[in-house]
Amino acid sequence: TEPLTRGIVIFGATGDLCKKKLIPALYKLWLKDLLPENFLILGCARREPTAEMWKESLGYYPDDFLHHLDYQCADLSMVETLRHLPDYIDDMTYFLSVPPERYADAITNLKEAGCLDDPETSRVVIEKPFGHDYKSADHLSALVARHLREKQVYRIDHYLGKDTVNNILATRFSNILLEPLWNRQYIEEIQIFATETIGCEGRSQYYETSGAVRDMLQNHILQVLALIAMEPPSRMSAKEVRREKTKVLAATRMSPSIVLGQYHDYRSEEGVNPDSTTPTYFAGTLFVDNWRWEGVPFNVMTGKKMPYGCVEVVIKLKAPPLKLYEGETNDRIVMRLQPNPHLDIRMDIKSPGLNNDLEEATLTHEYPQDRSVDGYEKLLYDAIEGNQAHFVHAEEVMESWRIVDDLLCEGDHCQIRTVPYIYMPKTWGPWKQVESITNWDYPA
Amino acid sequence: TEPLTRGIVIFGATGDLCKKKLIPALYKLWLKDLLPENFLILGCARREPTAEMWKESLGYYPDDFLHHLDYQCADLSMVETLRHLPDYIDDMTYFLSVPPERYADAITNLKEAGCLDDPETSRVVIEKPFGHDYKSADHLSALVARHLREKQVYRIDHYLGKDTVNNILATRFSNILLEPLWNRQYIEEIQIFATETIGCEGRSQYYETSGAVRDMLQNHILQVLALIAMEPPSRMSAKEVRREKTKVLAATRMSPSIVLGQYHDYRSEEGVNPDSTTPTYFAGTLFVDNWRWEGVPFNVMTGKKMPYGCVEVVIKLKAPPLKLYEGETNDRIVMRLQPNPHLDIRMDIKSPGLNNDLEEATLTHEYPQDRSVDGYEKLLYDAIEGNQAHFVHAEEVMESWRIVDDLLCEGDHCQIRTVPYIYMPKTWGPWKQVESITNWDYPA
Repeated sequence: TEPLTRGIVIFGATGDLCKKKLIPALYKLWLKDLLPENFLILGCARREPTAEMWKESLGYYPDDFLHHLDYQCADLSMVETLRHLPDYIDDMTYFLSVPPERYADAITNLKEAGCLDDPETSRVVIEKPFGHDYKSADHLSALVARHLREKQVYRIDHYLGKDTVNNILATRFSNILLEPLWNRQYIEEIQIFATETIGCEGRSQYYETSGAVRDMLQNHILQVLALIAMEPPSRMSAKEVRREKTKVLAATRMSPSIVLGQYHDYRSEEGVNPDSTTPTYFAGTLFVDNWRWEGVPFNVMTGKKMPYGCVEVVIKLKAPPLKLYEGETNDRIVMRLQPNPHLDIRMDIKSPGLNNDLEEATLTHEYPQDRSVDGYEKLLYDAIEGNQAHFVHAEEVMESWRIVDDLLCEGDHCQIRTVPYIYMPKTWGPWKQVESITNWDYPA
Repeated sequence: TEPLTRGIVIFGATGDLCKKKLIPALYKLWLKDLLPENFLILGCARREPTAEMWKESLGYYPDDFLHHLDYQCADLSMVETLRHLPDYIDDMTYFLSVPPERYADAITNLKEAGCLDDPETSRVVIEKPFGHDYKSADHLSALVARHLREKQVYRIDHYLGKDTVNNILATRFSNILLEPLWNRQYIEEIQIFATETIGCEGRSQYYETSGAVRDMLQNHILQVLALIAMEPPSRMSAKEVRREKTKVLAATRMSPSIVLGQYHDYRSEEGVNPDSTTPTYFAGTLFVDNWRWEGVPFNVMTGKKMPYGCVEVVIKLKAPPLKLYEGETNDRIVMRLQPNPHLDIRMDIKSPGLNNDLEEATLTHEYPQDRSVDGYEKLLYDAIEGNQAHFVHAEEVMESWRIVDDLLCEGDHCQIRTVPYIYMPKTWGPWKQVESITNWDYPA
């Protein structure tokens, strides 16, 4: 057999993510014959199992696939151990499945060990969060920029691995149907929901330090907003798509109309500070200050312990300029990203019968889920192939933190109220406060 | 009980239309309490049955309804007999269920008998065809104008009684969704189908003198075209709606790109001239020469013995200006008027999976048919109520005949080929000729 000359190194290979997501995703790519013929999957961690023990711990895989796997002991905080990574690999993807606070160290050491010298054949994949707020992200970003070219950095936002999220651009730009409507002249309001029915079961320690703003808004929701609001790129390349997304985020600002919430009983959960002001809920209005969107509110709601869990974008069109019929409602274009993803167009039709009344009709297409792929499969495939289109650019990260930075303020000196309102589980948050923002199209 | 002081006189009351359509429609209105309390339904014909005999011939109806019915012998060609129509009726609708060639006579005599003197309380309902070609329609129109005010004349095009046809305006103008797209900038082509699977079973004597152009194109199809193409009216009144329709028809012209056809074996049917050149099929391109539609082809197809029978409008949008994805197809908005009426929007979405391919998605709303009403019920209701919105204005009739007049030419001096091509039943007409017009979205 050919020597394995292309590879991915997974740091944190004994962790959960590697076992549950990364190896299964690579296996699926292998099954589809989408891994390079001569591909090496190298698990790395500080522990010292043998390759055999590591492979066994991953569960059952056929020998043909296991042939591509190997294990090596290495420590991202000790540059010496990184010098022993295989040097016969021509093209390497380093996947840092390690806590974010170790990214800076890891990148410095990988660089020092000589792993990242060729920007064409070496790249680093990191998971969110990229920083903790604007300032920390700025530091991390500067460090990354010192050691790496931007084209070597693959920042995962797993939303961008979702088929339905990528479909936003395909739906907008492979059709001419929506473009004439897609601006302040015809759109009255855009609502973005990312709600969950669960609390932070078992993850409260992580969640205490992140909260709704960092966990959902700064990354996932602002990415969805960028895809909805961006201009058509001149071509579908990573460079152009990310440039357009960055432009939109740079034009986006949080309005003062925001509400933070925390579900009742959050503070009594294990691992949570009894005085915690970590928000588990956010609702608020953002504006995109450019020619296309000036004045159009982007109303966003995200929260835990909600009555219904889903990710959905509602484009609410303006009413026609002249009210010719009784009972007109605003048209809506609804992109349901999960669960049961579908695209709806809601409009008025004539009620059947003698009268001239209207009723609402919903034109639906259900997105075929049986052929959809897991986000990690898509993102690993793209990273190995060197396609950055579905990864987040450094500037996008910085603009996202800038947008939400005021919401991360703690203590009495904050300019806005960041102490969350308490809400009851299975409600849409602190509704009395939230009502003032807009008439929500609560998803269901 | 109150005296019956409002009424409808049905001339030709012993005929099929009266029994099968008009009385059942009036009965349904009565059941829904939509007939005026004091309403008289007066059957009139030249024969002399008694009221009892006439009522019996109609089939079973409850006594409460039959109380509203009466019969009187009258002959539209003898003005004397018309003078004996009841004079205690305050408001009268005269429904001429008689052959079109008798309209002129009928209107003259009704006028002379004093039935039509008050334009506010008397009106005449006539069925198509209004004339045989432009010249004859012009004569009839002049005669009608001499005796009647336009607001007294209710020209039925039974397509305008169809819920789904009226829904065209509601869909267009109670929503802002379609209007930005609804013009030459975004629409590449419009196709209108009105196809039937049947031949002219049992109606060949009528059909020989009408043919596809008179039977379908001049009225029904041009009405559908007008509703699709018209500008938004300033309000939904009969006056404004009909003014806008007239404007569109006045801007419409037939292009030289037309094909007439006749199904094989038509000439051997009973009652058909063995050398008949009556077309049973028309396919062709019309243009609406105004700012909105300049250059957009309206491709129309109508025929008998087609593979599928339906009335459908296909709005084919242009391709996006930049081809960003592989496999883009043109978006389409499809209004299926019958059977199984529905509204479709066909657009591209991303194929699920790792690739960036597209596939076509169809967003559908099925029009709820269980609540729909028969066209005659709607049109009789409107006529009795004095609402002309769904009746055809004299100018619309004249413009329609002008548009199709060249197609009605017979003999060697015709400027275009009006001798039909023979086509086989269950095909889409003389396909070799028809193909040159456009890529048809054959309905199915």
